[in-house]
Amino acid sequence: MLEEIKSWRHAFKIDPARPLSERWIADICESGTDAIIVGGTEGATIDNVTECLAAVRRFSVPCVLEVTELESLSPGFDAYFIPVVLNAHNPAYISGLHQQALKAHGQFLKTAEVIGEGYCILNRDSSAARRTNADAALDLDDIVAFSRFSESVLRMPIFYLEYSGTYGNVDVLKKVSQILEEAQLFYGGGIQTPEQAAEIATWADTVIVGNAIYEDKEEALKTVNVVKETTRQGKLR
Amino acid sequence: MLEEIKSWRHAFKIDPARPLSERWIADICESGTDAIIVGGTEGATIDNVTECLAAVRRFSVPCVLEVTELESLSPGFDAYFIPVVLNAHNPAYISGLHQQALKAHGQFLKTAEVIGEGYCILNRDSSAARRTNADAALDLDDIVAFSRFSESVLRMPIFYLEYSGTYGNVDVLKKVSQILEEAQLFYGGGIQTPEQAAEIATWADTVIVGNAIYEDKEEALKTVNVVKETTRQGKLR
Repeated sequence: MLEEIKSWRHAFKIDPARPLSERWIADICESGTDAIIVGGTEGATIDNVTECLAAVRRFSVPCVLEVTELESLSPGFDAYFIPVVLNAHNPAYISGLHQQALKAHGQFLKTAEVIGEGYCILNRDSSAARRTNADAALDLDDIVAFSRFSESVLRMPIFYLEYSGTYGNVDVLKKVSQILEEAQLFYGGGIQTPEQAAEIATWADTVIVGNAIYEDKEEALKTVNVVKETTRQGKLR
Repeated sequence: MLEEIKSWRHAFKIDPARPLSERWIADICESGTDAIIVGGTEGATIDNVTECLAAVRRFSVPCVLEVTELESLSPGFDAYFIPVVLNAHNPAYISGLHQQALKAHGQFLKTAEVIGEGYCILNRDSSAARRTNADAALDLDDIVAFSRFSESVLRMPIFYLEYSGTYGNVDVLKKVSQILEEAQLFYGGGIQTPEQAAEIATWADTVIVGNAIYEDKEEALKTVNVVKETTRQGKLR
């Protein structure tokens, strides 16, 4: 599965706490996106996560759960992304909750595809930053250092620049894309237009579109083709 | 280098803050051990670390620096182990100090072999536990969960059971050795006799002998052959 994930250029992230119509789910799943990620900082429950999965499973697109609430962990997803918030000041979000989850559900690893994401949360006003007590006031060199730590010390397969809800700093994205050699670079946050999606796709391996799904459907759908048509630059690998 | 490290069965860990005679360094280096690890929780400086390296470099044994003080980082070692204290309550010892170190010395990664160690500190009275504010009061299932987190979520190449100064719980060691599939299992702490070294070597991939060097030289030296002659059991890989 990790090999397949490496080829993903575009994914939609849907929030299980914000229901979407059947028709809208169908449009997203049939958009040509590479994957649907079910994830949200607040309000994920076993019920709404299972509902999302059931809705998406009517289509052939891969469906991944990003685990943010132990209570919402449900079987049947193609893979499970586990965010490790590298710049959290609360150690629970770096290693603590993960350890508790694996204590309760360790056997889960035997049958499920579990993939860690080295997260760097960069919008200090986001609920993700508040929840994890993240030090989001980072300069370029800080973020580069986290990317190196994630890739070279931890050896995590994914490094995730998360601007949740705000459009990020493209200079940061470009620099990190030039630093990483092995890890897959995810970008998420504030992509509202195809133009923004193209700019991000120039540097990120995988472009995650979330909020736009809820704010401007048509623009959100347009991001898929734009990302697919954009050539990834700057990778030194 | 990582491939070579995977074959290590025995290593001596010497504390740069506790000087050893030239003769004693020679005996350790020529003992047949697989490696010398320079590391200690307190008192490592650029001067004493460099002195250790110079003394060990007269011999052919590999020499690794376990980086515990940014100030003591010096070039010339065969590899650099970076402890990530998974059960630290102070996030600085999980990701914070590492990020600061890589911010200051990021280029270092290009020329040096840097290898992360997923540490679990299990002696609550040790200076390592106090310094990192580690939650060392862990039961078997807690420790197993940390080993799974280290291997499967972070994908760290080494998992290190650190009982620093006290002899560990062999049931824990055995269980963890049966859980890990890819990661190399290091054990350190309280090995004073060849019999203890043999017991640990039955389950750990790599047996680290530290304090005995300072307390009973002859017994410490005997651990080398005992470990080499012990067959590793229980590995499900």
